[in-house]
Amino acid sequence: MQHLAGKEPRVTAEPWRQQKKQSKHQQRVSAMGNCCESCNFFSQRKNTNVRVSLPAVCFVWQIAMIILFGVFIRYDEESSSRWPEFRRSHNITSDIENDFYFRYPSFQDVHVMIFVGFGFLMTFLKRYSFSGVGFNFLIAAFGLQWALLMQGWFHTLDLTTGKITIGIESLINADFCCAGSLIAYGALLGKVSPVQLLVVTLFGVTLFAVEEYIILSLLHCRDAGGSMVIHAFGGYYGLAISWVLYRPNLHQSKRLNGSVYHSDVFAMIGTLFLWMFWPSFNSAITDHGDGQHRAAINTYLALASSVLTAVAISSMSQKKGKLDMVHIQNATLAGGVAMGTAAEFMITPYGSLIVGFLSGIISTFGYLFVTPFLEKHLKLQDTCGIHNLHAVPGMLGGFTGAIVAAAATESVYSREGLINVFDFEGDFADRSVGTQGGFQAAGTCVAVAFGLVGGGIVGLILKLPIWGDPADDNCYDDEVYWEVPEDEESIPPVLEYNNHMVHKHQDISESNFSVDQS
Amino acid sequence: MQHLAGKEPRVTAEPWRQQKKQSKHQQRVSAMGNCCESCNFFSQRKNTNVRVSLPAVCFVWQIAMIILFGVFIRYDEESSSRWPEFRRSHNITSDIENDFYFRYPSFQDVHVMIFVGFGFLMTFLKRYSFSGVGFNFLIAAFGLQWALLMQGWFHTLDLTTGKITIGIESLINADFCCAGSLIAYGALLGKVSPVQLLVVTLFGVTLFAVEEYIILSLLHCRDAGGSMVIHAFGGYYGLAISWVLYRPNLHQSKRLNGSVYHSDVFAMIGTLFLWMFWPSFNSAITDHGDGQHRAAINTYLALASSVLTAVAISSMSQKKGKLDMVHIQNATLAGGVAMGTAAEFMITPYGSLIVGFLSGIISTFGYLFVTPFLEKHLKLQDTCGIHNLHAVPGMLGGFTGAIVAAAATESVYSREGLINVFDFEGDFADRSVGTQGGFQAAGTCVAVAFGLVGGGIVGLILKLPIWGDPADDNCYDDEVYWEVPEDEESIPPVLEYNNHMVHKHQDISESNFSVDQS
Amino acid sequence: MQHLAGKEPRVTAEPWRQQKKQSKHQQRVSAMGNCCESCNFFSQRKNTNVRVSLPAVCFVWQIAMIILFGVFIRYDEESSSRWPEFRRSHNITSDIENDFYFRYPSFQDVHVMIFVGFGFLMTFLKRYSFSGVGFNFLIAAFGLQWALLMQGWFHTLDLTTGKITIGIESLINADFCCAGSLIAYGALLGKVSPVQLLVVTLFGVTLFAVEEYIILSLLHCRDAGGSMVIHAFGGYYGLAISWVLYRPNLHQSKRLNGSVYHSDVFAMIGTLFLWMFWPSFNSAITDHGDGQHRAAINTYLALASSVLTAVAISSMSQKKGKLDMVHIQNATLAGGVAMGTAAEFMITPYGSLIVGFLSGIISTFGYLFVTPFLEKHLKLQDTCGIHNLHAVPGMLGGFTGAIVAAAATESVYSREGLINVFDFEGDFADRSVGTQGGFQAAGTCVAVAFGLVGGGIVGLILKLPIWGDPADDNCYDDEVYWEVPEDEESIPPVLEYNNHMVHKHQDISESNFSVDQS
Repeated sequence: MQHLAGKEPRVTAEPWRQQKKQSKHQQRVSAMGNCCESCNFFSQRKNTNVRVSLPAVCFVWQIAMIILFGVFIRYDEESSSRWPEFRRSHNITSDIENDFYFRYPSFQDVHVMIFVGFGFLMTFLKRYSFSGVGFNFLIAAFGLQWALLMQGWFHTLDLTTGKITIGIESLINADFCCAGSLIAYGALLGKVSPVQLLVVTLFGVTLFAVEEYIILSLLHCRDAGGSMVIHAFGGYYGLAISWVLYRPNLHQSKRLNGSVYHSDVFAMIGTLFLWMFWPSFNSAITDHGDGQHRAAINTYLALASSVLTAVAISSMSQKKGKLDMVHIQNATLAGGVAMGTAAEFMITPYGSLIVGFLSGIISTFGYLFVTPFLEKHLKLQDTCGIHNLHAVPGMLGGFTGAIVAAAATESVYSREGLINVFDFEGDFADRSVGTQGGFQAAGTCVAVAFGLVGGGIVGLILKLPIWGDPADDNCYDDEVYWEVPEDEESIPPVLEYNNHMVHKHQDISESNFSVDQS
Repeated sequence: MQHLAGKEPRVTAEPWRQQKKQSKHQQRVSAMGNCCESCNFFSQRKNTNVRVSLPAVCFVWQIAMIILFGVFIRYDEESSSRWPEFRRSHNITSDIENDFYFRYPSFQDVHVMIFVGFGFLMTFLKRYSFSGVGFNFLIAAFGLQWALLMQGWFHTLDLTTGKITIGIESLINADFCCAGSLIAYGALLGKVSPVQLLVVTLFGVTLFAVEEYIILSLLHCRDAGGSMVIHAFGGYYGLAISWVLYRPNLHQSKRLNGSVYHSDVFAMIGTLFLWMFWPSFNSAITDHGDGQHRAAINTYLALASSVLTAVAISSMSQKKGKLDMVHIQNATLAGGVAMGTAAEFMITPYGSLIVGFLSGIISTFGYLFVTPFLEKHLKLQDTCGIHNLHAVPGMLGGFTGAIVAAAATESVYSREGLINVFDFEGDFADRSVGTQGGFQAAGTCVAVAFGLVGGGIVGLILKLPIWGDPADDNCYDDEVYWEVPEDEESIPPVLEYNNHMVHKHQDISESNFSVDQS
Repeated sequence: MQHLAGKEPRVTAEPWRQQKKQSKHQQRVSAMGNCCESCNFFSQRKNTNVRVSLPAVCFVWQIAMIILFGVFIRYDEESSSRWPEFRRSHNITSDIENDFYFRYPSFQDVHVMIFVGFGFLMTFLKRYSFSGVGFNFLIAAFGLQWALLMQGWFHTLDLTTGKITIGIESLINADFCCAGSLIAYGALLGKVSPVQLLVVTLFGVTLFAVEEYIILSLLHCRDAGGSMVIHAFGGYYGLAISWVLYRPNLHQSKRLNGSVYHSDVFAMIGTLFLWMFWPSFNSAITDHGDGQHRAAINTYLALASSVLTAVAISSMSQKKGKLDMVHIQNATLAGGVAMGTAAEFMITPYGSLIVGFLSGIISTFGYLFVTPFLEKHLKLQDTCGIHNLHAVPGMLGGFTGAIVAAAATESVYSREGLINVFDFEGDFADRSVGTQGGFQAAGTCVAVAFGLVGGGIVGLILKLPIWGDPADDNCYDDEVYWEVPEDEESIPPVLEYNNHMVHKHQDISESNFSVDQS
């Protein structure tokens, strides 16, 4: 540091930039040396070329989807041109009673959560923003088509015609179904190839449809916002995969496993769109009328509450009370996850605040203590901390739902309200609220079990050395799967270009260098 | 500048980065020197540690909210499970007539304005984006709970049961109520601690509920989009606080009081979401049917008009006609503020254009001349220029509303329309439009007075030396209250890490340095 | 490269920064030299000062709008205070049947697409983000007012009163009308002045209203999402202008014609909001009930499908299968464009997938091969590649619509459905589906012709040397029309400022330099 005291500095101020240029060469050299020999050797074997596999999967898949859609999927009565006849024959007075007008605004909010919310939340890494938002985009577009089929076969297949009919509610459910796999992506962020993500999504959507069928149809649970079927399942699914794919030498990519200033601001776009639209998420497929209305209010309150406790714990945990962006970006959302099941129940406004209060605390504690513990002792690498944002709050939400269901009374709900809210009709007309509570709790366990077992199996599949995943010292880096433009600093001056006309993707700063030395 | 003329440069190109490392030490040294001794001395006394106060306020507050919600707040008829009974008993034909479907899309748009709009508008500073969007998030989540209680006590408290019932309209009003405090944050941006902001919000929401009760209930004014109750109040509230908290040595933080290229682009996200959703803001709580419809149209037109005049004045004000991002980010919104009161009236489409035309001009002139004047001569530091975007256009909007109300005629509105729009029912059945205009003008004055007096008092409270606010040379800096990641340039090469495994928050570039010097 | 091999580097690491400071001077010097003399000479002649022209156009235009709105534009029955009377007289049972509630959520989604979607999609250039999002904002706000008038004169002018009445559908149509000109902006991005853009918009909106009248009213085509009237027209309009304005020396600005890391992430905000809300775009003005419902479903499916094929082709086209952000940002949207006409028809869900499948492939191929070909051989510079995203998929969508219309049968649509969907009423009651298909194809040709001819003429107007467009070596640069803040790296340390108090827009790093040399 002498040179700062007045002496002539002889070093360049940006040594890393020069090293960057050498790094490829030195990497190979160092692999011959004593440090990390085996891992570098391993990394040389890794082939991240997806030029055959990625297009092949996309094309085969999309063509399969077209065929299956051709065989199975049709418009339902409310989206078909026969709607005017249907309306008249069912004495529906106005077009406004088409389900479209009940659910389309919520659908669009959910859609924003899936693509912008989840996508931008995952842009927080300094050099993995393209993959964060881009692969999220790819796998959601891939998964939602399969979800329409899988959920259709389980829920709306007409056995007489062999057709599935779809409407706006199907689209919401398809988006929900993708959410499970996108949550799993959070644990795997930076460590897998896009082809692996498509495999995760293919199995994730399939498993989702099965566990959803068991929980909602067989166990007759209520789970409007998916604390169980989406968050607990998706969370443990991702964690199990990540556990199987444990990388002991991941520290070699540590330099890139962190944020920079502006990537954290990008991630706040994701956080806020998730936070704002979570009331729509939890109310999107609840009952018309009071069901949607109440679910939105409860979620709104729980989210507000978890912001305050997340901030409080974050501030307490640091010297001088400084806040950590990781907590603000994630733990503030825990209230929405934990209200997924109970949002449509008469949990009362203050009950919602309590749920948000607790989940904000638990989630922030998870980021502070549980994630480091899991990584160190359970060999579980969880890039986005989905354990704290989805797995645990989802499970908490499932059990909250069980308790609130078991505590329901006719005096609070009214007789008709009780039947409406818990759908005590048909085969389930005689079910008591206590029994319902028990089934709700059982449903939560089913979701967790499906996540863990399914994730374990999928993890093993992903260990096959054919998927093009990155080497341990190459994780969290967009350069592996994307054409990445130059950094901002390398915008060169006018003069330079009049001489050289350097090409777009060439290393621009290098050419500047030589000019300067002359 | 010799080295630029061809000589060999011997200096490093990024001196500031090296200095950054010394700066803490040198800051203390320079405090012993001759320059700025007193202020640095003062800055050493400043304690920005909020590790006790911030969590304490959050926890105490959130627990108080849970208790008060438990005592007071219940679902209303439309969000309770008793809705099907209510519907039948009131001959409501369909669930679609639940107020949820009239207002939920507007609610979500308002919600986006509060959290993304206001939040991202305040990310424009080069190193205060975390606080801009993060504290906005915190105080809105904090304020909206208190707003539900305060507004409930004043407007929907059922005296027989002692309960407040809430529905979707309550949530919109709670968001509106927070907006007043968020506007005030705009004047204080960069100069206060999060604890101070919570105090600003606590009093801001309380004052808001009182002035709103006086203006809307006692004076029976109409103010759908809150030109008076939100913008004029919030603007003068923030200005009064800022005036009391005047910092004569704020120039010491001048280096950070400005934008960088990408922070200006982030701020445009805020601007555009505010601009696009302002029609929803002004129409969210107006009458069903024509009220919402007309308010949206009028606001849409006024906003378009103010974009053109803001651009025109911005271009005129600079040599070569270059545009200034400050004007584009802010003055383009003035039309929405100024239409807050009159949007639901029959102001006519061209009347809306005129309002936007004038407010765009006035607001841009404010940024060019009034803010510098206020800072120099009135000792009023207004970081975001809320004087020009909220205070003055809000007041203008209040008086516009008064004039339009006074000019209302039965031939334009129809008899029934006049009663509907101005709510001339009950005690106010005999009020003339002229009287209404007078009361509207009086309401504007009440809002301004509440802002100025309330802000003055709150400012004095904030002067207590217990709130952890930053020193004068430490303003506009996220590092005071946030764990800030390294800058983008310090992404180091692969090699480095294999040797050192530098920790996440360690000064990375420093270690690079030592390697390079060898 | 010697210094990288261990020798002491004596150069500064950021030579371009120093050169930047010299560049103005050297630019002039080099103009005297042998390199690029003529173009630099030419650049000195170019006057980019818009201080008179831009404000003049804005003011004159806005005042003209106020006068014309005063003469022509009034509220319609559903947005006027006479709505309660109208409702009663027309036996409308509830306020919820006001068109506002059918269309407002879609309107807001379209609004977001116009301002955030188009705006942020154009922020991808490294130093043109201000202009991308800012000029998009300006010309949309400018154009929508003129669109309300033009479309009103053609479609809703009441000849007895001489008035145009507007409601929520008018606002959607005005936004649509602007979209044509915003598409054209995509081809011109970086090469024109804001005044030129206002001229483009003025003529663009005018031409749009005429071709729309011919296609929708005279030819009685259906084109809900505007494949023909918006995308094919707008695309060819922009391409024709760009062809006329061909700049042979544009390579002089090549250094700025590319993205940096974070500008690509900003552009993804635009992409995603366009992608997510495209179902609202295509369903915004379709028939109440099944029309809106079906259009949303079809568009949702087509978009999902085009994501997969765009990714597949993008990956196939690069060594190692790396994805290119240009394709992900643009070609993924082609499915939405191509479904613009057929979305409201009974195209079937698998039909939608096929449309998305093909358009994703065609669009990505366009970016890979057609745009470079056009630039090289047809002298057509298309900054954003609107040829591949709008022109071709729009034309494809028009012909798809023609085929789907011609293939319509009563057995699929039902008799009533067929009349509803194709509006076979009044003068067109006897039109067969085959004839309709022919007219749809003819409509597509009309749109393309209007774009090409209109664009050619407007291009000639823009060649007049009075509009303040930038020189060839000054394109893609915000500095020409904006006050641009310093780069991020120049945030200086605390110490510096206590001594110097450098002013906001001064070159900060320069002052650091001198300190360091001492």
